[in-house]
Amino acid sequence: MKQLEERIKKDGRVLGDDILKVDAFLNHQIDPDLLLAIGAAFAQQFQDERIDKILTVESSGIAPAVFAGLALHVPVVFARKNKSLTLPDGVWTADVYSYTKQTTNHVMIDQRFLGAGERVLIIDDFLANGQAVVGLLDIIDQAQAVAVGAGIVIEKSFQKGRQLLDARGLPVVSLARIKAFRDGQVEFES
Amino acid sequence: MKQLEERIKKDGRVLGDDILKVDAFLNHQIDPDLLLAIGAAFAQQFQDERIDKILTVESSGIAPAVFAGLALHVPVVFARKNKSLTLPDGVWTADVYSYTKQTTNHVMIDQRFLGAGERVLIIDDFLANGQAVVGLLDIIDQAQAVAVGAGIVIEKSFQKGRQLLDARGLPVVSLARIKAFRDGQVEFES
Repeated sequence: MKQLEERIKKDGRVLGDDILKVDAFLNHQIDPDLLLAIGAAFAQQFQDERIDKILTVESSGIAPAVFAGLALHVPVVFARKNKSLTLPDGVWTADVYSYTKQTTNHVMIDQRFLGAGERVLIIDDFLANGQAVVGLLDIIDQAQAVAVGAGIVIEKSFQKGRQLLDARGLPVVSLARIKAFRDGQVEFES
Repeated sequence: MKQLEERIKKDGRVLGDDILKVDAFLNHQIDPDLLLAIGAAFAQQFQDERIDKILTVESSGIAPAVFAGLALHVPVVFARKNKSLTLPDGVWTADVYSYTKQTTNHVMIDQRFLGAGERVLIIDDFLANGQAVVGLLDIIDQAQAVAVGAGIVIEKSFQKGRQLLDARGLPVVSLARIKAFRDGQVEFES
């Protein structure tokens, strides 16, 4: 997606070897017009998949997910990170390890909002090591729903997430695919 | 907002004396078409206020805020809840006490995304005791920005938040105002 790549070049900040900060327009400050275009791009890619529901994780996944939901006219469910030690009743749950923060989050979804046979599109802001998507796949399995694919705003292709999801046979559509960071600049896959 | 009141009657669940669960369409599962209408309603109410930026708190505020941002064509910033004990540099921060959870969250915004003189609209999903809005007002003060008003999806008028914000002279627009819960039913202000 050209508009997104241009925006990453303009407002993204590369920190070290593998971190890209896009907090100016995607996951702290949000540009709603860009997100509308992102949602429309996801909808176009998955329009033939008879999506029933979109699934994401709080907080950074919510904005791209709701705009994809708007374009596809389907409900969006965001998994909540559970901070308490006790688990409420009636939830699907999974552990998500964050390599960046080196912490494990327990994410959960109320069972009322995901049911057997529902065709689910996963949306997230970043694909790096793939742990968030794998956690959502676990939840989709528990609910006996069907994972149709994953729509990712920014993929870091040099990390292992894409390979992991390919191995599970999940179709992945990333709107910007980053091959490498070189001298503080972003190199996209061509 | 008639459409919202109808939806609360249909899909909201009253628990005890003062809790309304709207996780079926607002803050866990989200109906994007309803949220689009909510965003448009906020934009209409504040269209003459020359809003520069919308401010909210993760996670439940994000969806109504981005749709208001879409309708007003302005950036949206969501305050992050800071879980670590150390505070990063260059942030505005405030404490937000939650009466429901009886915990204090430290919320923060990168100083790059809120500056002196900016005209800010606060958006949130609920107004109950008003602590989240007061925290955002503190941050707006620190940044020497201008709080133009608050747009609230659902206000529980019988709790003290509205009074608190009226006393501070902040214009508050709530799309649904709940007067009381009676026998598990919602009574709206007329």
